Amino acid sequence: MALNVTQKLIQDHLLSGELTPGEEIGLKIDQTLTQDATGTMVMLELEAMGLDYAKTEASAQYVDHNLIQEDSKNPDDHLFLESAAQRFGLYFSRPGNGVSHPVHMQRLAKPGQTLLGSDSHTCANGCMGMLAMGAGGIDVAMAIAGEPFYVKMPEVWGIYVKGELPDWVGAKDAILELLRRHDVKGGVGKVLEYYGPGLKNLSAMDRHVIANMGAELGATGTVFPSDEEVKRYLKSQGREEDWKEIVADDGAKYDLHEELDLSQLEPMIAKPSSPGNVVPVREVAGEPIYQSYVGSSANPGYRDFAIAAEIVKDKQVADGVSFDINPTSRQMLTDLVKNSHMASLLPAGARLHQAGCNGCIGMGQAPATGRNSLRTTPRNFPGRSGTKEDSVFLCGPETAAASALTGKITDPRDLEMDFPDISAPDNPTIDMTLLDKPKLPEEAKQIELQKGPNIASIPEMDELPDEMELPILLKMGDNISTDEILAGGARVLPYRSNLPEISKFTFEIVDNTYYDRAMEIKDQGGHAVVGGYNYGQGSSREHAALAPRYLGLRVAIVQDFARIHWQNLVNFGVLPLTFSTSEEKDKLEQGDVLQFSGLREAIQNGQEIKAKVKDKNKEINLRHTLSVRQVDMMLKGGLINWVRDRDKK
Amino acid sequence: MALNVTQKLIQDHLLSGELTPGEEIGLKIDQTLTQDATGTMVMLELEAMGLDYAKTEASAQYVDHNLIQEDSKNPDDHLFLESAAQRFGLYFSRPGNGVSHPVHMQRLAKPGQTLLGSDSHTCANGCMGMLAMGAGGIDVAMAIAGEPFYVKMPEVWGIYVKGELPDWVGAKDAILELLRRHDVKGGVGKVLEYYGPGLKNLSAMDRHVIANMGAELGATGTVFPSDEEVKRYLKSQGREEDWKEIVADDGAKYDLHEELDLSQLEPMIAKPSSPGNVVPVREVAGEPIYQSYVGSSANPGYRDFAIAAEIVKDKQVADGVSFDINPTSRQMLTDLVKNSHMASLLPAGARLHQAGCNGCIGMGQAPATGRNSLRTTPRNFPGRSGTKEDSVFLCGPETAAASALTGKITDPRDLEMDFPDISAPDNPTIDMTLLDKPKLPEEAKQIELQKGPNIASIPEMDELPDEMELPILLKMGDNISTDEILAGGARVLPYRSNLPEISKFTFEIVDNTYYDRAMEIKDQGGHAVVGGYNYGQGSSREHAALAPRYLGLRVAIVQDFARIHWQNLVNFGVLPLTFSTSEEKDKLEQGDVLQFSGLREAIQNGQEIKAKVKDKNKEINLRHTLSVRQVDMMLKGGLINWVRDRDKK
Repeated sequence: MALNVTQKLIQDHLLSGELTPGEEIGLKIDQTLTQDATGTMVMLELEAMGLDYAKTEASAQYVDHNLIQEDSKNPDDHLFLESAAQRFGLYFSRPGNGVSHPVHMQRLAKPGQTLLGSDSHTCANGCMGMLAMGAGGIDVAMAIAGEPFYVKMPEVWGIYVKGELPDWVGAKDAILELLRRHDVKGGVGKVLEYYGPGLKNLSAMDRHVIANMGAELGATGTVFPSDEEVKRYLKSQGREEDWKEIVADDGAKYDLHEELDLSQLEPMIAKPSSPGNVVPVREVAGEPIYQSYVGSSANPGYRDFAIAAEIVKDKQVADGVSFDINPTSRQMLTDLVKNSHMASLLPAGARLHQAGCNGCIGMGQAPATGRNSLRTTPRNFPGRSGTKEDSVFLCGPETAAASALTGKITDPRDLEMDFPDISAPDNPTIDMTLLDKPKLPEEAKQIELQKGPNIASIPEMDELPDEMELPILLKMGDNISTDEILAGGARVLPYRSNLPEISKFTFEIVDNTYYDRAMEIKDQGGHAVVGGYNYGQGSSREHAALAPRYLGLRVAIVQDFARIHWQNLVNFGVLPLTFSTSEEKDKLEQGDVLQFSGLREAIQNGQEIKAKVKDKNKEINLRHTLSVRQVDMMLKGGLINWVRDRDKK
Repeated sequence: MALNVTQKLIQDHLLSGELTPGEEIGLKIDQTLTQDATGTMVMLELEAMGLDYAKTEASAQYVDHNLIQEDSKNPDDHLFLESAAQRFGLYFSRPGNGVSHPVHMQRLAKPGQTLLGSDSHTCANGCMGMLAMGAGGIDVAMAIAGEPFYVKMPEVWGIYVKGELPDWVGAKDAILELLRRHDVKGGVGKVLEYYGPGLKNLSAMDRHVIANMGAELGATGTVFPSDEEVKRYLKSQGREEDWKEIVADDGAKYDLHEELDLSQLEPMIAKPSSPGNVVPVREVAGEPIYQSYVGSSANPGYRDFAIAAEIVKDKQVADGVSFDINPTSRQMLTDLVKNSHMASLLPAGARLHQAGCNGCIGMGQAPATGRNSLRTTPRNFPGRSGTKEDSVFLCGPETAAASALTGKITDPRDLEMDFPDISAPDNPTIDMTLLDKPKLPEEAKQIELQKGPNIASIPEMDELPDEMELPILLKMGDNISTDEILAGGARVLPYRSNLPEISKFTFEIVDNTYYDRAMEIKDQGGHAVVGGYNYGQGSSREHAALAPRYLGLRVAIVQDFARIHWQNLVNFGVLPLTFSTSEEKDKLEQGDVLQFSGLREAIQNGQEIKAKVKDKNKEINLRHTLSVRQVDMMLKGGLINWVRDRDKK
């Protein structure tokens, strides 16, 4: 059968399941990527599992998110991550070395491999002929430990690319055009695979831009072939030997079809406050701006900064405009310095920041209240900039630089200057100074984890008991989000590496007596909570399962679960149950005590679970939807115990 | 009479008093400097005074401290400062343009003038033949409004400089040597004036380093002559016309004497946690380090970065060392980029940060807990780095760069490389992009102050009433510090531009019911507080007077006051009284109501003030020590009202 690139990549890594869209498949993972915001918990999970040494071909721990060192928490986390990378045999990209996705592309990405990362833009490395996917932290921990990654077999959406980008139009405009057509849910359950004669006109870094923002379409992944351009790129990085050709077979089919004619594109912009809110730049031209921001994994390439430099060279940014330059890797920054582009940007008025994610994830460069900020970043959700009442537009570097000069949103074609056609240097600097190689296994064993005062190991979690008496500590309504279960934000997230501390914020928004009540009976068997429909919607943060579990939550009973939170509960050994009929919920009151008996056998034997309400002569009928693998995990108290016990054998 | 440079500068600006050390003198101020952390309140004070246009020759508002934009507060402050600078006729140095002191030196400093700044390192510009002094915010606001600055006539400490710095020894080592000899209080009440044949071997930027850290000696100021080197420097900055010669007369005398033989110096280092804790580097060589940090107003020059670049060129920093480069001005950064020093620093492993104060004042680059950090900054007080348990050493860039390479504290002479003798370029880049010139008066009048949601005008404050009934809301013990009156720190200081908000923290540490109780009777005439000895010790922050005044504090009665807080109370119209005998305090209870009658006349007629205790048949005897000028100010409700009323006439 003629296969497309996605199917080839999946087939080469298939451990379970079949290539039928919608069916669960298990994939072998070759590479992983973790960043610091999610990575500390991943490393603590590896510690809790007792992992000896990474079982992947290459795993890298990056420090790119939390670079602001206002107190000891972030630098202590950096040292912990460094020691954990050394202990478990991972690459370690030191703070200031750059954003995970472009650094990974430069130094580690390998055509034909799978990459799983605890960052939603991991898909960016699909530009290299890889199957690259974002996932939750524990999924990545499992992959590092050699476990398959389970995902629903996606539909493959073939995007036929033809033509060539006109002057003043870049790769960012191409992906913004797709977002204009399909909005932020258009790619859900799909891998976007690009093919066709137009690809030869897109550099590997252009493809990175397009693959990166597949995440904004909601796609499972984005795949480009590994062709001559990927070969050229790898050669420029001194890694030609890592190349192999992976292109679709003649006659390969796609589940869905789309055409993108590059020659028909024009400068595009996403208006506040969604990446799907896209219009041509000319439609909003003239709006005054306060900030113009170049950087992030959505425009990470040398070319993206160099073109901005050429546009502003020998000119000055408009009064009142903050022109923020956030380089994406030190390697690339060095070339921008050497090739005098930085000497064009600075006198024009640029504020040059440390290489990293920075303002893209609200770590610095927040705009003033209500002022328009133009950014080459991938997302403009409300408040993501750090400013509550923000007004963020997403665009390419051509539009950002042109607008910095005029002080208002400007279609770069209206500058009426010659188009500065720029490409990356053929022989870029190759910089490994801040990318430490993994220790060898014998050395790695000697490394001790460096835990600052704010870093705490994950406490031991026990097996699922057969008999339980669980008071219902909370009875909630519908649509409880993970933000209500465990808030994000600057007040809570600094405790991301400290479960006992972060758990103090659990359900705080719903009922601020929960923590105290849960702690009181934590050692007496724990408790249950009851919820309504769409329980656990929103952010995928796994702390929203781990923290209540730490406080003794054993069973969550709701009308139905949001998918990712359900998965997180399972992973951390909280039994997720649904009411057999919607009326069952009415039988329960907050404060009721549920009695489970013969529970271990019950969840193995079928989906029906019964519980008695103590002193009330009532019984309620519940269900679970765990797979056989998940039941086994649940009995052992969660995924960490399951892996650790298996590896002991 | 033969005069030294300090005496000449003072004599040229003397508005009141005589050149007798210890006597109060009033000085005409030619230039002012405000930074963003202190400047927002200064601008609100100018607004409250109703200032039309700055009366100084040049005043500049810098944004260099609060560059971390994690939410809207800092960027909103920046916009406010920009609008205020435009409104009041000030220069505005935009965020990212650099640290106030070196930028001021490059672009505005002028031999023979006085400079008053709301930053303790304002003394740095004494390197330019200026009398440059740090002061509280309201003092600077008054100077902008054309008022004299009142200060005690200092002793002049003549420091005779001879010889030439050996290789590997820099200006920083010279000032560290003086700190070794005299510790952090050695300069109190003095101006340090440098003279002698060795000066010809110190560049203007070297002198900046030495003048800057006069603040660490506690000096009122540091003065260098305006000689050929200052002329050369100004010429290199395109400002030769601003030069004039100012040197000591033949036979000029000094009150105190010191000799500094540059040729006898060696690399020096201040150990944790005081700038006075100085030893030769060789005494602590070999200690492992975690961070090496080059930047700040204490080593701001091109040469300081270039020499670090030459030391690490074609090498790599040691594993685990964070090598942080904090450029001090964009103008200088541009030259470092153009002259390829940045292309040496980056591949060696440098983390390049935005131009600004940054980690020097705990805004980023905080070290990990307990790890050794080497910094070229001026201060290493405990916790100033942002990390509570920090371990910060102060040194020059030669030592910092050498230690970055080895991973341990290293005397740079032990590198055994040729000394890279570096000086600043003869024709440096001159960059005005982010330094906006003042608006002309007619334009300035049209400007509206831009106040984000966290910026509130200073409320109107009324005159001192003649009759008052004031309940005593707090009766406190001895040594109450301004931190107890109004705490600093990251929880409180973000409200520095919002008096109603920041006042909620007033006396919180002493009694957290104070705010509510004060607000309740705020509009019924206000209240009094009673304290013991050394009331108001510690930080000079003026919010500690302004916030309680806003809440209705009219009279503070204590055994004695710390000097600066007393001054702040006077400035903001709180009447500071002391008990006539120490026993009087015992007569008063918290909750007592004090009755003052004929108060306005009483404070004009003498120092004795009497008050009755309502319903208790008691009278207490109090004193004030206000000058005639201060009595006038107090009657009008404080300095702001006093200036505004005077200007109306």
